[in-house]
Amino acid sequence: MIEERNIEHQHGRDYYHEPPPAPLLDTAELKRWSFYRATIAEFIGTLLFLFLAVSTVVNYKEPNYTDKCSRIGYLGIALAYGGVFSVLVHCTSGISGGHLNPAVTFGMLLTRRMSLIRAAAYMVAQCLGALFGVFFVICFTNSDEQQSSEGVVNVVTRNYTNGAGLVAEFIGTFVLVYTVFSSTDPKRNARHSHVPVLSPLPIGLAVFVVHLATIPITGTGINPARSLGTNLIYRSTTEAMDDLVRSSLTSLVHVSRCYSILGCDAVL
Amino acid sequence: MIEERNIEHQHGRDYYHEPPPAPLLDTAELKRWSFYRATIAEFIGTLLFLFLAVSTVVNYKEPNYTDKCSRIGYLGIALAYGGVFSVLVHCTSGISGGHLNPAVTFGMLLTRRMSLIRAAAYMVAQCLGALFGVFFVICFTNSDEQQSSEGVVNVVTRNYTNGAGLVAEFIGTFVLVYTVFSSTDPKRNARHSHVPVLSPLPIGLAVFVVHLATIPITGTGINPARSLGTNLIYRSTTEAMDDLVRSSLTSLVHVSRCYSILGCDAVL
Amino acid sequence: MIEERNIEHQHGRDYYHEPPPAPLLDTAELKRWSFYRATIAEFIGTLLFLFLAVSTVVNYKEPNYTDKCSRIGYLGIALAYGGVFSVLVHCTSGISGGHLNPAVTFGMLLTRRMSLIRAAAYMVAQCLGALFGVFFVICFTNSDEQQSSEGVVNVVTRNYTNGAGLVAEFIGTFVLVYTVFSSTDPKRNARHSHVPVLSPLPIGLAVFVVHLATIPITGTGINPARSLGTNLIYRSTTEAMDDLVRSSLTSLVHVSRCYSILGCDAVL
Amino acid sequence: MIEERNIEHQHGRDYYHEPPPAPLLDTAELKRWSFYRATIAEFIGTLLFLFLAVSTVVNYKEPNYTDKCSRIGYLGIALAYGGVFSVLVHCTSGISGGHLNPAVTFGMLLTRRMSLIRAAAYMVAQCLGALFGVFFVICFTNSDEQQSSEGVVNVVTRNYTNGAGLVAEFIGTFVLVYTVFSSTDPKRNARHSHVPVLSPLPIGLAVFVVHLATIPITGTGINPARSLGTNLIYRSTTEAMDDLVRSSLTSLVHVSRCYSILGCDAVL
Repeated sequence: MIEERNIEHQHGRDYYHEPPPAPLLDTAELKRWSFYRATIAEFIGTLLFLFLAVSTVVNYKEPNYTDKCSRIGYLGIALAYGGVFSVLVHCTSGISGGHLNPAVTFGMLLTRRMSLIRAAAYMVAQCLGALFGVFFVICFTNSDEQQSSEGVVNVVTRNYTNGAGLVAEFIGTFVLVYTVFSSTDPKRNARHSHVPVLSPLPIGLAVFVVHLATIPITGTGINPARSLGTNLIYRSTTEAMDDLVRSSLTSLVHVSRCYSILGCDAVL
Repeated sequence: MIEERNIEHQHGRDYYHEPPPAPLLDTAELKRWSFYRATIAEFIGTLLFLFLAVSTVVNYKEPNYTDKCSRIGYLGIALAYGGVFSVLVHCTSGISGGHLNPAVTFGMLLTRRMSLIRAAAYMVAQCLGALFGVFFVICFTNSDEQQSSEGVVNVVTRNYTNGAGLVAEFIGTFVLVYTVFSSTDPKRNARHSHVPVLSPLPIGLAVFVVHLATIPITGTGINPARSLGTNLIYRSTTEAMDDLVRSSLTSLVHVSRCYSILGCDAVL
Repeated sequence: MIEERNIEHQHGRDYYHEPPPAPLLDTAELKRWSFYRATIAEFIGTLLFLFLAVSTVVNYKEPNYTDKCSRIGYLGIALAYGGVFSVLVHCTSGISGGHLNPAVTFGMLLTRRMSLIRAAAYMVAQCLGALFGVFFVICFTNSDEQQSSEGVVNVVTRNYTNGAGLVAEFIGTFVLVYTVFSSTDPKRNARHSHVPVLSPLPIGLAVFVVHLATIPITGTGINPARSLGTNLIYRSTTEAMDDLVRSSLTSLVHVSRCYSILGCDAVL
Repeated sequence: MIEERNIEHQHGRDYYHEPPPAPLLDTAELKRWSFYRATIAEFIGTLLFLFLAVSTVVNYKEPNYTDKCSRIGYLGIALAYGGVFSVLVHCTSGISGGHLNPAVTFGMLLTRRMSLIRAAAYMVAQCLGALFGVFFVICFTNSDEQQSSEGVVNVVTRNYTNGAGLVAEFIGTFVLVYTVFSSTDPKRNARHSHVPVLSPLPIGLAVFVVHLATIPITGTGINPARSLGTNLIYRSTTEAMDDLVRSSLTSLVHVSRCYSILGCDAVL
């Protein structure tokens, strides 16, 4: 039996049959309750992700924390983003696949693992969830803290050029999407059927290390829904639109994500 | 074989038979030793959880820690709560299911996964365990440290309104109970029989991130047994009952937990 | 097939046959190479554990670290102990079972899972490994740092009574041994055959949280081999034997471990 | 069935058939696309590892971080190295085996698990990837930060002798390679077929604890590709070649790695 299993391991690919690509327009999906349940799960998951992560960042910047060593620092913020994302991917993976990130959904669409209708519904739900999540934070915290949007919005910091921010974002998104694709690769699932159960852990770890590396550069905008939510809400209310140049850079970065996803798939 | 497994994955739900709901009053349970063993495990688990977690918080506030950078900060406290909870859920999951939290037990009762008798016994054991755990800490530490109950009891901090505290508690409890239900979902167990073995990890991670986000708001009272234990013991001995208003808020939060649990199940 | 598995899950205990208790004196073991390989693995594992963990503690106390915020604090020390222990349990679990702690070996002997000969060989190897590990650290660091044995040796700190130290050690060892027994419980293994593969994670997490809670009380002496190694080497060379009372307390704590192990088994 | 499985566990080795050693020169490999894909994966994996890890170290040393408590400290740096390595081993393990370290590749060659051609291609790809990764970091950060190469390059710090640095590097590399071999041991795989899926976790944890222990001694040079990349780029541009003695020491350490790998295999 074990020898047979070894053979199966060596020639695993031969035994594996690629699932057919998902149809682009599958209108039958709109009639299934599971489609709407998955979209709701993406909405609630992204809302909770943004609420908990942004709440963590904002709370430890209060002016009354005179005891600076009680603060959690960048290490704590990176752990919060990675940990919250891991927990919510774990919760929603059985319902919607646990994307919680338009870049991941876009990658799944490009590789034809989901229909265009489902991908569009996911992305809208994620962006709305991110907006509501940040909105809830801004409602419950006092107004004088909101002026310090540092650490919440995604901008290129003074020390770095826009090009450096672009590269950092490109590599960060590449590492995240690469980890997601590695964790949910159907080829590996066929051999080790329990990979998806474990995937929230490496995905959360990837979010953690990417935040640790790129928070000082751009504030880590590897999740377009998150960047949209924080920048729309914190920017419009507190600062003038004087850094429209940086916003356009950010959108450029989001285009670069398409290439990162494509490049990632080529490596796989 | 692999193709067959794929089919099993796709139609997993069809193969899955919902277990019958647990009877509300199952007096036969009272005659089984496993019932009492499980109740004792909940008592000891909650006692150890409170002892280790509160001991960690209290120890690093001693006045003789002049070297402030040796302190563990909020990051360490959140890691202590999450880590201790994860370890003790791991230890007791094979005996009692590893609830260690009346909110989790209440959710299991609402979804008819356990009888009313067992749920009541669990909750009493958890509250008693929490009281003894905090009592042990207060016995072994010097009295002059107890006056600073900050970080141990659950109150809404000055910067936040009671409404903000309520929402933070609601969302925090929702995320924890959602993670527990996702980890022990019998539908997923049928497909990946080893999920429960892994569940202490995401549950501990959820406790960690919820503490990180809500310690500065309310001190994180997502565990009613823990809130009861710390507030009863530290409040009555050290401070006057002048913030009875806040206590009533806390109880209001605990009512909101019922809705969070119901809402959670609807999403699942 | 899944229904059958469910039945197997519900009546798992019925299908499980308790392995016969290990003989107390199994002289045949002395003729097997696997016996000596396991003893060598325990020696090397404990040596590496002590070298890496004590080296971490000693390194960050150097007088030339004027930048105090670069220090790792108690959080880093607790992570080092837990992380190193987890890694080395992972490495040696396939060879010797990955005890690396006389308290664990003693618990396995009491529950008749290993012979007296093997347990004695393990304990001697662990104590020798701990002594060599600490000795290597003291050889490679400069002498002026060794005077500050704080954080390395196990003593009850000024703020706590000896009784408090005893209780803290008792509970800490209980939690560690409870986690080890939960992870290697043969009843669970029969049902989920891969538990032992995952066990280094909860065991390391237990070591981490126990250190976090009890470092400020006693320096965390839940590993008798570690206490022996650090106290023998750092004490004899740097301080007089004036705190022999505390040493006798420590030995008393080690006796209390027997009860903790027995109590632990009763709960299981 | 379970009894049969127990027997299989006890006599697991008897059922296990050692795979034949890989041929030293397997020219047929050069014709397979999987060979080139694996080499590209090692290149990209090492590049991303160095970029993210070195970027993390460099970012938090910027002179404009006057708020010192926001820094991540040595704990954050060790977490970054361990976390990034774990994530990228997870990503590349299905393609190339996830070495990302010439010491690991060399160990696999010595134990005849891969051909000489593949090992040479891996090592060249790893060293090139490390050079490009560090080069990218130096391109995107401002020049005035590069003078402080502390924490990036591997040198023996003033407090330690060269011998102490050698021993620390030897033990650090031993622990890492020991963990890798324990995680990918084909004997264990035969029994628990999912070990490789879990291996990125203990490997990342090993990298973390070794960094925590040896950063203050040598900067942790357990990855020869990383040492080469950082020392070549940061040294040649910023400092004179006055510490050639230390470089030769480092190379001596790399020779010592061969023995550590051999010793490791003997223990297994």
